[in-house]
Parts: sequence; structure tokens; C-alpha cells
Amino acid sequence: MSSSAVAYAHQNHSRFLGELKDLLRIPSVSTLPEHKGDCRKAAEWLAAKLKRIGMENVRLIEGECHPLVYADWLHAGTKPTVLCYGHYDVQPPDPLDEWVSPPFEPAERNGNIYARGAVDDKGQVCAQVAALESLLASGGLPINVRVLFEGEEEVGGEAIAAFVASRPPELKADFALVSDTELFAPGLPTLCVGLRGMIYTEIEVRGAKTDLHSGMYGGAAPNPFVALAQILARLKDENGHILIPGFYDDIVPPSPEELAAWRSLPFDEEEYRIHEVGSRQLVGERGYSVLERTWARPTLDVHGIPGGFTGAGAKTVIPAKAQAKVSMRLVPAMTTAKAFALYKNYVERIVPPGVEAEVRLIHSGDPCLVPVDNPYIRAATRALGEVWGRETVFIRSGGSIPIVGDFARHLGLPGVMMGFGLPDDNLHAPNEKFNLKNFELGIESLIRFLEEAGK
Amino acid sequence: MSSSAVAYAHQNHSRFLGELKDLLRIPSVSTLPEHKGDCRKAAEWLAAKLKRIGMENVRLIEGECHPLVYADWLHAGTKPTVLCYGHYDVQPPDPLDEWVSPPFEPAERNGNIYARGAVDDKGQVCAQVAALESLLASGGLPINVRVLFEGEEEVGGEAIAAFVASRPPELKADFALVSDTELFAPGLPTLCVGLRGMIYTEIEVRGAKTDLHSGMYGGAAPNPFVALAQILARLKDENGHILIPGFYDDIVPPSPEELAAWRSLPFDEEEYRIHEVGSRQLVGERGYSVLERTWARPTLDVHGIPGGFTGAGAKTVIPAKAQAKVSMRLVPAMTTAKAFALYKNYVERIVPPGVEAEVRLIHSGDPCLVPVDNPYIRAATRALGEVWGRETVFIRSGGSIPIVGDFARHLGLPGVMMGFGLPDDNLHAPNEKFNLKNFELGIESLIRFLEEAGK
Repeated sequence: MSSSAVAYAHQNHSRFLGELKDLLRIPSVSTLPEHKGDCRKAAEWLAAKLKRIGMENVRLIEGECHPLVYADWLHAGTKPTVLCYGHYDVQPPDPLDEWVSPPFEPAERNGNIYARGAVDDKGQVCAQVAALESLLASGGLPINVRVLFEGEEEVGGEAIAAFVASRPPELKADFALVSDTELFAPGLPTLCVGLRGMIYTEIEVRGAKTDLHSGMYGGAAPNPFVALAQILARLKDENGHILIPGFYDDIVPPSPEELAAWRSLPFDEEEYRIHEVGSRQLVGERGYSVLERTWARPTLDVHGIPGGFTGAGAKTVIPAKAQAKVSMRLVPAMTTAKAFALYKNYVERIVPPGVEAEVRLIHSGDPCLVPVDNPYIRAATRALGEVWGRETVFIRSGGSIPIVGDFARHLGLPGVMMGFGLPDDNLHAPNEKFNLKNFELGIESLIRFLEEAGK
Repeated sequence: MSSSAVAYAHQNHSRFLGELKDLLRIPSVSTLPEHKGDCRKAAEWLAAKLKRIGMENVRLIEGECHPLVYADWLHAGTKPTVLCYGHYDVQPPDPLDEWVSPPFEPAERNGNIYARGAVDDKGQVCAQVAALESLLASGGLPINVRVLFEGEEEVGGEAIAAFVASRPPELKADFALVSDTELFAPGLPTLCVGLRGMIYTEIEVRGAKTDLHSGMYGGAAPNPFVALAQILARLKDENGHILIPGFYDDIVPPSPEELAAWRSLPFDEEEYRIHEVGSRQLVGERGYSVLERTWARPTLDVHGIPGGFTGAGAKTVIPAKAQAKVSMRLVPAMTTAKAFALYKNYVERIVPPGVEAEVRLIHSGDPCLVPVDNPYIRAATRALGEVWGRETVFIRSGGSIPIVGDFARHLGLPGVMMGFGLPDDNLHAPNEKFNLKNFELGIESLIRFLEEAGK
């Protein structure tokens, strides 16, 4: 079965690429109201395609904004069921003048296809669809398959989160296949097995009842921005160590094997500092490598401090209030509930004299980690090794993909994050691209994976 | 001479009030381009009035925006020369719906006149003009007089600052009379003899070369907002003590007599906390009263922290840079140059790892203090005592009136700050008012003062 589906994929590769280009031409920018029709067009394009290749029960699931696309094929008897996930919406293309070719006119150059959404995530969605088509055309799917594509990933994914949380029968499955990640390096087959969680919060500090003149009242009226700075400075020290008591208590460190594997990855901290970050030096907790600090250690960041006077020049005001946007990334086995409680209690305890502080949770997501000996991870590992001819590396990501946590929490599904992007693919930036070889090997990897998962 | 000018003022009081209303009906809002014509109209109104009462060399001095109004009367021989200052421009009237009567339709209620600009500063400008008219109509001015009214006080006063800095012969005088302040309490004759100075600065902190995803890079990339909070927290402690080494070195404390006089002022810190500030508690350096802290101690305030993500909800960004607007109020004998140098050197020394910081001076003004035994202050004291029947109190202001410092620095003029507002006059707020009795006694006080200054 294997060889015939892969052979089909090879024979039809130029058509697959043509279809990807058709999808890339639809400017399905989910955040811009003027592209609402284009988002629907992309959803309908995918639904039609899924129907054409033989998927069943194809339908759009309507929400408040852009529809979900659902399909299934459940004729594999007692074989396991996979829930395939990807998203058809894209980021806005700005700044337009930095694109070498127009963002919605896909162009091939240097072995890549360039377009907004090429890698994030239309190319990966099309790879999934092409794998399904190849298998369906070669005797049927080796496992039961459900497909759920969304159109709001770039704007928070609220519709899919609500749908998943409702635990609908349509999503009953054994594992999730998420194709929205990347290889650690070109040619290096990669599975992402861990994601950091997050709590995103606001601290609001209030002093006087109204804005006051800083000349008349400076020295007597509390200044919420000064108080906020004093609070923030007590959250994390200059070495990146978070000062919230108990914050580190529940961390389960990576195993010595996992750490050893990370050390063997092709990663140079100085290269990373210069080319990715561009700062004078890197920061963070002493005694941990960059990969440990960004994948397996919690962090705290401040994203902005709204309020007060932010215009050009000078205004002599003591603002009545100030806010800070503060988030923390969490790692296994921390929980969002406990982390937020520790943080909130601590902030409330260190509020300087004269002001009141309120700590609010904006949103949160638990960290997740899939054991490398999970049977579906093992199946994915075998498939990737066969296609790429190299041993698969297991990485984590410092980011949070909330849908993976949602699949785990609400549906009990371990997530197999198998994606084929590259670190320099310009996600969310001009000249986004997808490597054509990765598109081809990605389809093949997905075919092999579904076959392995059905064994 | 005294009695006849005061008698003239009494006889003409209702006309003076009518003229003030005429001026208040001109919406000379200096910050709004659509009122540029109104500002000119107010300047022309004042020029015409000054000409009518017998002032000479009346003219508008044009700048980039709203004109200055100049006039003089220099026939008092060897008598000293006063430079009378006030401003004809006003703040915007917003929020309009909180006004009981329309802001540009002056209305009398409860012994007050309500209108935008009633006390700040048209009422006080008209009091000066009425005093000059009363004296001119009663035999001539007892001293030489120059008048300089400006129309940009509410937008920074750049035109007058440049004019004063050019040391023009038109401004040659012996002292300045500034009517833009208030009585410490109703019925209490007050002279403001000290103003704090100021340095207004920006700190810019830069980390990565571009905004980064806080999931992917959190734990390795420097966060400029965290670094800025760490810097700000090291500028002032929770007791309001400024931590910049050497910052307090040059302070000349108020004399024991001045402090004793402040203690006898009708001022209740708890009333002030509740009704003026409205915070849970007051803050500031221990061992100093509120009046000492706001009049005679330097302070440091943060006005806003622009940059980063300030919208609603969450954005997971590590911003490439952050800014803070930081000002310090200075007291005699601190200088802006030394204070800024100490601050800048200190900030540069405490920059946390991974980021770079730049410290910029936006603007500055030296503190000023006029000795209470200055002959013009003594003359003002005698005049006020006579008119109000109480002993004059000498106060300072925590604010900075840059033009007073400019008169001192560039023209060598001590400033007599004789104003007749009240603390609850709603400057810059809806329902601005000027007490009608204060308008009347203000005119009389100004007449008496000019007479005393000519003795």
C-alpha cells in the first residue's frame, strides 16, 4: 500500500503544487474584515477539494467569524482514528513593499514557493490533503481520519477552541496530527513533543482619583508608573530568575537523555544571538543553555505598559493609573491555575505604599509534553526516518499552540506535531516561503506516518 | 494718588467686569488650530484696550503662532520699571457636557464668574489692565510700566521664551509682575516666592534588533520593558527617596522662619489627601510635611512608558525597545545641568545586561526663589496687607512657571507672583471660575502695589 500511495504522490506532484498555488491566491487574511469573503472562499475551496478526493461528511461549521472545515473517512474498522489539524487563514502581508513578488501571486524561486501563507499554514494543509488523496486513490486510508481546518488561527482561534471544548462526537479520535511546525534545520526530520504553557495577565495600579499635575503634587501623590516599575522589578531579577516564591516548585526537568539530545542539535548560541535576536548579549538564567531556557524553563515578559502620557514631548502629569501586560511561559508540570495564584498573591503582597493593584488573567494555556515513547510518536519517528534517511530529532517549542493543549485537555488526544517549515521561512513577515522539497517530502512523510499509525 | 485710583476702580467696576466678559467670550484656545483666529482676536482686543486707556507703543509681536501683546508707559522718570505679564490664551473646554453654563458664555453665580479662562488667566490679565487704567485716569502711573501678554502659555510658551532670551530693549525693567497664581485660601493675601525647576527626560531602552515572539525567545532575548522597570525601580525607593547619588547635595533648605510660616498656614494633610489627591495614602520622603515635600524637596515622577503592546487583550511580543518619560522637580540651589548629568550617568551605570539605554533631555527650567526681603516683595506685602486686612503669607509652588525663570535668567528680573485665584477655581477643568470679590480686591491690590513700588 505504501509504495503505491507514494508513487501516486510523485506522479501527481505538479498538480498538488498547482492546487497549493490556487489556495495561496486567495487572500484569506483573517484579521481584516475586508477579507472575510476570501476566508470563506478558502474554506469552500478546501471543502470542495476534500469532497473531490473522497472524504465524507464534508461541511463548514459556522461560528461568529470564519468557518471551520470538517470532513471524515471512517472505514478503517478497528484501526485508530487521527484528527488532522491545520489552518487556512493567513497573516496580513504588510509591509507590502518588502515583498520581492506579490504576496498573493505565488512565485517559484530558488527551490521555494513564495507567498503569504506558503508555510503558515496553507502549504502544510495542502500536504495533508495531498497525502489523504494519495492514500484514498491507492486503496483507501490505512486508519480512520477526521479533518478539522480552521480559519481563525492568526486571530486567536476562539471558534475552534469553543468547538473542541464542547467535546463533539465528530472529534472522537485517538491522536491529533498538527502540521504547523518546522524542522529544526534543513533536511533534519523533526518532531515537536513539548510546548510551553502561558498565563497572560494585566496588572493595574491606581493612585490618585484623577490625573494630577506633577509639579503641584509631585512628592505627595503616589505615582502608579513608579509603583508599577517597583512591582515589575521584583518579579524577575537581572539574571532572568523569577522571584515569585514557589514558582519553580513543580517543574519536571527534561531527562538527561533529552538534554543530551538537545546538546547534539545543530545550534550555535552566538549565531542565534547575532542573526535571530540581534542584541548585545543574551539574557536568562545562569547554568541553562538557550534551548533549555526557551524550551524547558519558565520565563516572564512584559509586553507593554499602557496608560499615562505617551505622546511626543512633555506632559507633566501624574497619571491616576497605569497598567502592565505581563505574561509567563510555563513548563511541565506547572499548571496555569497554580502559577497565576502564586503570581497574584505575590504581586498583591509587594504593592508599594499609596497605590492599589489589581491583577487580572487575560488568557492561559497549560504546557504540554508528549512522551517520545507514545505509539503515535514512535510511528511518526519511523515514517520520518524512512523518508528523510536520518534519525528524527525531538524538540520542544518555547511557544504555545493552544489548540494542541485543547485537544489534550478536552479530547484526551496526544498531539503529533509534524511540520515541514524551516527556521528562515519568514512566518508573519515579507517573503514568506515554503521549500518545494519539503513540500514533496512532507506529503510522503504524512503518507508513511498514516500507514505506520495503522500498523 | 492712591485713593483716587482705587475710587476710580470702584466707580468703574461693573464696566471692568463687562469688559472681562467680552474677553471671555472670545474662545482663544491656543492648542486648537481652528481657534487661531480667536487667539488673534483676543490679542487685538487687549491691544485696543491698552491703547484706549493711554498705554503707548502698543503693538502685536508676531511669531510662528499667536502674537505677543506689548505696550509701555515710561513717563515716571527715575522710578523703577515693572514688566507686567499675563496670558490671553486658554485651555480647551472639554468635556463640554460637564459645564453648568457654556464655557464661552460667561455667567455669574454664587459670587463667581464662570467661563473658560475666568481665572486662568483672562480675569487676572483684566485686573492688571483695570489697575493700569485706574492709575492712568487718576494722574498717571506711579512707576514705569511695560506690558507683555502672551497667547501660547497653555502650549509651552515658546514664542515668549525666545523673545525674552533675545533680551530686547523693550523688556528692560526692574522687576516682573506675574498674575497667574492663586491665594493659599480664600481671603488670605498670598505671594508665591518660589518655584521648583524641572528636567523632563526620556529613557529609551533597546534590546533585540526587532520585535520577537515571547514564546520562542522568552528566556534568551532581553526584554526592554523589564529592563526599564529595573532601572526605574532604582531611581526612587518606596519612601520617595531619590537614589541618584549626589542628587540632594546642593539643596538649600527653607529657613526655620519660612518653615514655621508654612506650619501656620491653613492646611490639613488629611483633607488634602481625601479631597485633592484621593489616594489611599500620601507618599513621599519621611520627616517632611506635604508642603515641604511639594515646595522644597526635589521629586521624580514617571509620566508614561510608551512602546510595546498597549491594545486590549494579549499580544505575545518581546518589544525591541521601550521608552519612559521621566521628570524631576528641582529646588534651590540645584541646577538643571548638574541634576541631568548626575541622573544620566547613574542610569547609564545601572543598565541591566543585554540592553542599551539612551537618556535624553526634553526640556528643563531652573528653580527660582525670590527673597522675601526683596524691595518689590516688600512693597507687594504692604499693598496686600492694606487691601485684605490680613498679614500676607509667602508660599512656594511645586510647579514650574518657566517664564518667571526666564525673566530672572535672561533679564535679571525678580518675579512678584501676585495672583488672585482660589484653589478650587477648576483651572483646566469644567466650570472654571473667578471669584468676583477677588477680581475687585485684585484690581485694588495691583493699584496699591504699583503705588508702593513707586514710593
